[in-house]
Amino acid sequence: MPWDFSTDPEYQEKLDWARQFVREEIWPLETVFHELDQDQLDRAYAPLQERVKEQGLWAAHLPPELGGQGWGQVKLGLLHEILGTSMLAPNAFGCQAPDSGNSEILALAGTPEQKERWLEPLLAGDIKSAFSMTEPGAGADPTLLQTRAVRDGDDYVINGHKWFTSNGSIADVLIVMAVTDPDARPHQRASMFIVPADTPGVNVLRDVPTMEHPEGGFGKLGGHSEVLYEDVRIPKENLLGAEGTGFLIAQHRLGPGRIHHCMRWLGVSQRAFDMLCERATYRYAFGSTLAEKQTVQNWIADSAAQMQAARLMTLHAAWKMDTQGASAARTDISLIKFFGAGVLHDVVDRALQIHGSLGYSTDLPLEAMYRMARGARFYDGPDEVHRQSVARQILRGYEAPADGVPSEHLPTREAHARQKFAEILEMVTAND
Amino acid sequence: MPWDFSTDPEYQEKLDWARQFVREEIWPLETVFHELDQDQLDRAYAPLQERVKEQGLWAAHLPPELGGQGWGQVKLGLLHEILGTSMLAPNAFGCQAPDSGNSEILALAGTPEQKERWLEPLLAGDIKSAFSMTEPGAGADPTLLQTRAVRDGDDYVINGHKWFTSNGSIADVLIVMAVTDPDARPHQRASMFIVPADTPGVNVLRDVPTMEHPEGGFGKLGGHSEVLYEDVRIPKENLLGAEGTGFLIAQHRLGPGRIHHCMRWLGVSQRAFDMLCERATYRYAFGSTLAEKQTVQNWIADSAAQMQAARLMTLHAAWKMDTQGASAARTDISLIKFFGAGVLHDVVDRALQIHGSLGYSTDLPLEAMYRMARGARFYDGPDEVHRQSVARQILRGYEAPADGVPSEHLPTREAHARQKFAEILEMVTAND
Amino acid sequence: MPWDFSTDPEYQEKLDWARQFVREEIWPLETVFHELDQDQLDRAYAPLQERVKEQGLWAAHLPPELGGQGWGQVKLGLLHEILGTSMLAPNAFGCQAPDSGNSEILALAGTPEQKERWLEPLLAGDIKSAFSMTEPGAGADPTLLQTRAVRDGDDYVINGHKWFTSNGSIADVLIVMAVTDPDARPHQRASMFIVPADTPGVNVLRDVPTMEHPEGGFGKLGGHSEVLYEDVRIPKENLLGAEGTGFLIAQHRLGPGRIHHCMRWLGVSQRAFDMLCERATYRYAFGSTLAEKQTVQNWIADSAAQMQAARLMTLHAAWKMDTQGASAARTDISLIKFFGAGVLHDVVDRALQIHGSLGYSTDLPLEAMYRMARGARFYDGPDEVHRQSVARQILRGYEAPADGVPSEHLPTREAHARQKFAEILEMVTAND
Amino acid sequence: MPWDFSTDPEYQEKLDWARQFVREEIWPLETVFHELDQDQLDRAYAPLQERVKEQGLWAAHLPPELGGQGWGQVKLGLLHEILGTSMLAPNAFGCQAPDSGNSEILALAGTPEQKERWLEPLLAGDIKSAFSMTEPGAGADPTLLQTRAVRDGDDYVINGHKWFTSNGSIADVLIVMAVTDPDARPHQRASMFIVPADTPGVNVLRDVPTMEHPEGGFGKLGGHSEVLYEDVRIPKENLLGAEGTGFLIAQHRLGPGRIHHCMRWLGVSQRAFDMLCERATYRYAFGSTLAEKQTVQNWIADSAAQMQAARLMTLHAAWKMDTQGASAARTDISLIKFFGAGVLHDVVDRALQIHGSLGYSTDLPLEAMYRMARGARFYDGPDEVHRQSVARQILRGYEAPADGVPSEHLPTREAHARQKFAEILEMVTAND
Repeated sequence: MPWDFSTDPEYQEKLDWARQFVREEIWPLETVFHELDQDQLDRAYAPLQERVKEQGLWAAHLPPELGGQGWGQVKLGLLHEILGTSMLAPNAFGCQAPDSGNSEILALAGTPEQKERWLEPLLAGDIKSAFSMTEPGAGADPTLLQTRAVRDGDDYVINGHKWFTSNGSIADVLIVMAVTDPDARPHQRASMFIVPADTPGVNVLRDVPTMEHPEGGFGKLGGHSEVLYEDVRIPKENLLGAEGTGFLIAQHRLGPGRIHHCMRWLGVSQRAFDMLCERATYRYAFGSTLAEKQTVQNWIADSAAQMQAARLMTLHAAWKMDTQGASAARTDISLIKFFGAGVLHDVVDRALQIHGSLGYSTDLPLEAMYRMARGARFYDGPDEVHRQSVARQILRGYEAPADGVPSEHLPTREAHARQKFAEILEMVTAND
Repeated sequence: MPWDFSTDPEYQEKLDWARQFVREEIWPLETVFHELDQDQLDRAYAPLQERVKEQGLWAAHLPPELGGQGWGQVKLGLLHEILGTSMLAPNAFGCQAPDSGNSEILALAGTPEQKERWLEPLLAGDIKSAFSMTEPGAGADPTLLQTRAVRDGDDYVINGHKWFTSNGSIADVLIVMAVTDPDARPHQRASMFIVPADTPGVNVLRDVPTMEHPEGGFGKLGGHSEVLYEDVRIPKENLLGAEGTGFLIAQHRLGPGRIHHCMRWLGVSQRAFDMLCERATYRYAFGSTLAEKQTVQNWIADSAAQMQAARLMTLHAAWKMDTQGASAARTDISLIKFFGAGVLHDVVDRALQIHGSLGYSTDLPLEAMYRMARGARFYDGPDEVHRQSVARQILRGYEAPADGVPSEHLPTREAHARQKFAEILEMVTAND
Repeated sequence: MPWDFSTDPEYQEKLDWARQFVREEIWPLETVFHELDQDQLDRAYAPLQERVKEQGLWAAHLPPELGGQGWGQVKLGLLHEILGTSMLAPNAFGCQAPDSGNSEILALAGTPEQKERWLEPLLAGDIKSAFSMTEPGAGADPTLLQTRAVRDGDDYVINGHKWFTSNGSIADVLIVMAVTDPDARPHQRASMFIVPADTPGVNVLRDVPTMEHPEGGFGKLGGHSEVLYEDVRIPKENLLGAEGTGFLIAQHRLGPGRIHHCMRWLGVSQRAFDMLCERATYRYAFGSTLAEKQTVQNWIADSAAQMQAARLMTLHAAWKMDTQGASAARTDISLIKFFGAGVLHDVVDRALQIHGSLGYSTDLPLEAMYRMARGARFYDGPDEVHRQSVARQILRGYEAPADGVPSEHLPTREAHARQKFAEILEMVTAND
Repeated sequence: MPWDFSTDPEYQEKLDWARQFVREEIWPLETVFHELDQDQLDRAYAPLQERVKEQGLWAAHLPPELGGQGWGQVKLGLLHEILGTSMLAPNAFGCQAPDSGNSEILALAGTPEQKERWLEPLLAGDIKSAFSMTEPGAGADPTLLQTRAVRDGDDYVINGHKWFTSNGSIADVLIVMAVTDPDARPHQRASMFIVPADTPGVNVLRDVPTMEHPEGGFGKLGGHSEVLYEDVRIPKENLLGAEGTGFLIAQHRLGPGRIHHCMRWLGVSQRAFDMLCERATYRYAFGSTLAEKQTVQNWIADSAAQMQAARLMTLHAAWKMDTQGASAARTDISLIKFFGAGVLHDVVDRALQIHGSLGYSTDLPLEAMYRMARGARFYDGPDEVHRQSVARQILRGYEAPADGVPSEHLPTREAHARQKFAEILEMVTAND
């Protein structure tokens, strides 16, 4: 049936399992996470990962030949909605960023040798990888990238200054975006390179502390590293894909990534929303429970509407990507990026407000959600750039009226309308 | 395939036909509409209605046995989105309010005699009907209805003061909601009655002029009448359904009606959005076209996101109504009511603003759309009541934690988490 | 005392008188206004104007030598707040647009001959004037003006297409802005001319119907006329001021005009706010009066805050204009334009919503206020242009840091801070 | 001159000094603050405090007899706007919360003995004090306070559970609010007590970690402590003021406190705004600096308008408090609480967004400002309660119309208007 919003029953069972598993097994980990060292953490995760593999939910984003499921974005989206409820869940499901995205890139653009050398150990969990694109002086505008890779004999020599390199301080290998042809068209200037972390000249300066991770990193789950590349020499075999295809590859990685992001945000939102509603049921002030206050009712109703909107829009974008390809879904994906980030903020914000001081304290996970949510508005490109991009794509479908008068200008249209109407009446009369 | 957002190709063809038909045949009527008398208008509509019937799109909301299509709300929704682009379109498609809703009510709750006497001529277009529920002193709260119907022998005698009775001044028959048992539970106090317009005591005071129709009515398409019922005596056979079922019947009428409303609003929004985008392409100020201004780009992107959201939410509500029944879709329908009204306003508002003085003038249809949009926020119940209703329904799914501590209170949860984690580590160690 | 928010008691008395006078004498006129012909209206106004003159409140915007008061903008603002409560009030106080602004222009830039010929009869109420600047193709960007005035011997010949020419259809004389030097700098291209309405070639096409005045004009109080100037020949003596000073003069007129506008909007807002609050006290729904609903409480609190904000900002801008001159107050005036338009809309919108259908009907003045409010967002330049103007003026006060690093970049500042602190400690230690 | 928005020149000089002093001497301290121990910090502050005293700006909130200035709230407000730019500034100016508020309370309600014992060492900086009012189960509703103080012979015995007790963990003495008469009227149930920190039964459980201070306290400047009072016995002489006056005293403390808060928020906002504007001047993306992007221009213009609004409203409230008393200013103070909190958030949020990842990192002070700003919406009572309070106070000025019809109902008013108008015409005619 067309316009069918249901999930097939078999997959729904998997989702139900995942939801319960994440809630019962992963959420408790959150409260002890900060006390564990890397070894303890790995030991704690191992049996969880085993159970996920038994359910056939491991690394579901990968194509079947790499051990994934080949499900398409709608199904992945529904799973990521559940994983989003805990920042510790993706690692249990084999889809922890940036390793997940990097493995996709290597699967897509890597040579057989590159796959053997880097992809296989990555999938086996034997190595960790970083993604190194953002620069202090270049945000969303790719033409501003400064890092250069210059061909020198059989090598490339990379120089540049990156930051917000995910996992940079714990990675064994970095995927680095660098300009190979400064004179090419904007989106063909850069290429991607595989850079082993122990290559001389790779200097990880620090994990940049942020509002989300003020301690400078996620510790065991990686950080946003600042990295200086000084005369980093790598063999030309480490070029990923063809020269000039850096943005093309990045785009391929970012599209599905944004869908997963948005669905994970919905997981966070739902968790915050549940807290908001629970609080309303019993908190009492000024003569009634908060559930009876119209302001709180408005928060609940607006949150429900926004979450429903973001969810349907994201799944629609996923469906379009699955059925018509990434390019056709481009506008839809930009839409959900900024719309979804706004929903995440609003819902978490209301849940925090209803808890007052308690919500502001670290006794509840809401304040951490709020700090995380603030990042959503510029990660993967600031909302402003996505809005611009959406508008430009939409405007391609319109053209200026030939006479410079709006198509719907009534006085201009009136003559036509009169004639039309006269014809109708005439026809009617003729039939009488 | 589940989560399928496509329309079946055969129906898509019908929609494409309808879209072109409304644009080419109905839109021009708008500019001459005000000059036509009732007879001319009827003559102009006749051949249009014939073509709609040929396409099998006539009165599509009715069950097949009454000449409708029995399609369900998703398909109806998609059609109403197109009809919404012109307030003159529904009449060409046999689904002009309030006749459409009234015919549904009669089909649902009418006796065979009532159907023969009222429904058949209504469907044949031989009579017009009004819907008389709203009272000056009673807005959205049904317990405040004052109009009374008192049983007197074999008759009912109705007394009361209604307004915003759609079509009141041109109707042959009115469906009137009146309290039959003031002591019953709130939603069982009232009943519906069929009142011929020529019954003594039915006094139509005026068509209330509004922001949308300052001239006091839509003229040939009816108005919002103020009606005084003074000792209006009707036989008991004119009771519609059982005593006390007035709200039940009204609810049945309003549910699908809201879906159609929301989809028609999207039609209006899309028309305004097209004007907004067209204007951006050629209007020039301060060194560039408006398409290059980021404020305008934001308007376009936000409008696109909001419209996409409202569209998917409405079709989802329609799907839920089709597959799980009206009751299951209740929250969804309240959601789209207030969310959709907001979207309509925002999109029309932006389209008007980009046209400046021109948009504010009656040379473009935008100012009329803007006036119409303002009504959407309280028609069929003010947004505030729908928000409240949504919140109450959602809150039924939550309960207060037994110990009065939020379920996610980290200090409280920590003991459990530690034990959980100890077990995991133990298990892992045992397996070593 | 500095930072003194009080009004001097003597003037407060005048304001109190004006408030009561407008409420008791002018408001009732609103309900019969549409039935009066021009003569009746003039007769009705005459005694009212007399009483205003007796109070010394007549034409208060004019300099003393022209019969005005020379009070400055703060006092004028406080008066206009009261006049704003009724669109019929300004005419009783001798400050009806566009005559009020035109008389200011003539007083400012007119030659003695021009003053005698046009200003005196204007002040005496013997003639009416129009202001003709806006063109269909030129909104807020002055460089887009197309109307041309070409010197030909001792005459100027004007050709062009204007609309939204206030009073165009009833004026005896029009002040017309036309380009005299297309090659000059943007703000020196145009000049102002005095054009008698009966000059051949002045063709008033229509009063443009708008959302506010759908009947095409304010009738007896003028309309927004569309005017075609075809080879309109006027003697060079009708040039107002020097060639190229058109925008300079317009700017002089618009500054105080915006302050008066904003204060009048506050008058409208206050009147709507009073209706909102009154309704809350007695309207009952769902178990309590609306005054007990938190949504309504939010509306009241937010409206009060916004009105207080707009009021203080406008009076502050007026004070700045009075004490530091129009140029110093430029940013402040742009601020209140868009901020005030938003406040007006929001307050009226809430007042309308709380009245539901009644507010939407013409039985209350709210729906007319709502339609009027929509115009405020683009009259005198769209809000978007004022925001841009404010930003540009503010940004002139900032410069890029020499090293391209934000002044507040903590790592960069740290060295300086350490040294500073070492010095402090050293100093402290030395003092020990 | 009435409506005078200027500051007297002498005081302006002091403000200019303070602005430069805070910027040059205090801001640098921020970057080394976290490394200093208490002793170093005290030593660093000493010379700074000396300079403030020399300027006559020390403890300016106190009455002259206690070494303060007795300036009134307008002047204090202007000073706090400057102090707000750094959270380290108040301590240098002798007005660090909660000591500043506590000293006001002691000055207001303390007996001579209490003043000698507690106020004098507090003012001398020899001891630190805490303010202990908030309870986990009682937010803004005072009737929900659970902490009890029971008279027992010549003592009071206090039992209860408080949190967000400012300075609790470092204080020598705590001001504690406890219920003395549970059956009294809501605002007369509680009293304030002076509780030495070393009294048996005063158990400081922890400093509650919050979004603003995740490390659990401000360290050397105090924290939000959770305190358990278990059979805390204090002599009856430690009652502050009369029994039942707890809320009265608290209210006295909170009024001016809110004005100072709001002005400090404006200091923060201005600092963030400066960063926003500076960034716009040089950051380049997509073909121009950010200063040229209309979105950024909108941010600047809207921020400027909001800050101007909040500033004028706060100074107006201060002026009202100075001239008409705290009670008259009550609505004004509630208004600025929620309005100002919103402005603070919005400005900081935009400044952060324009800096993207950099703004989100701890390399700029913006992310800390953003976290602080989130607290402003519920500190000193959540915004929702202040809105409710404002609405209730305003609504006292309105009453229901006697006939249940809106005062402005046009049909109802029409008869009166016609009569009025007939009289006018008659009068005019008589005069003819």
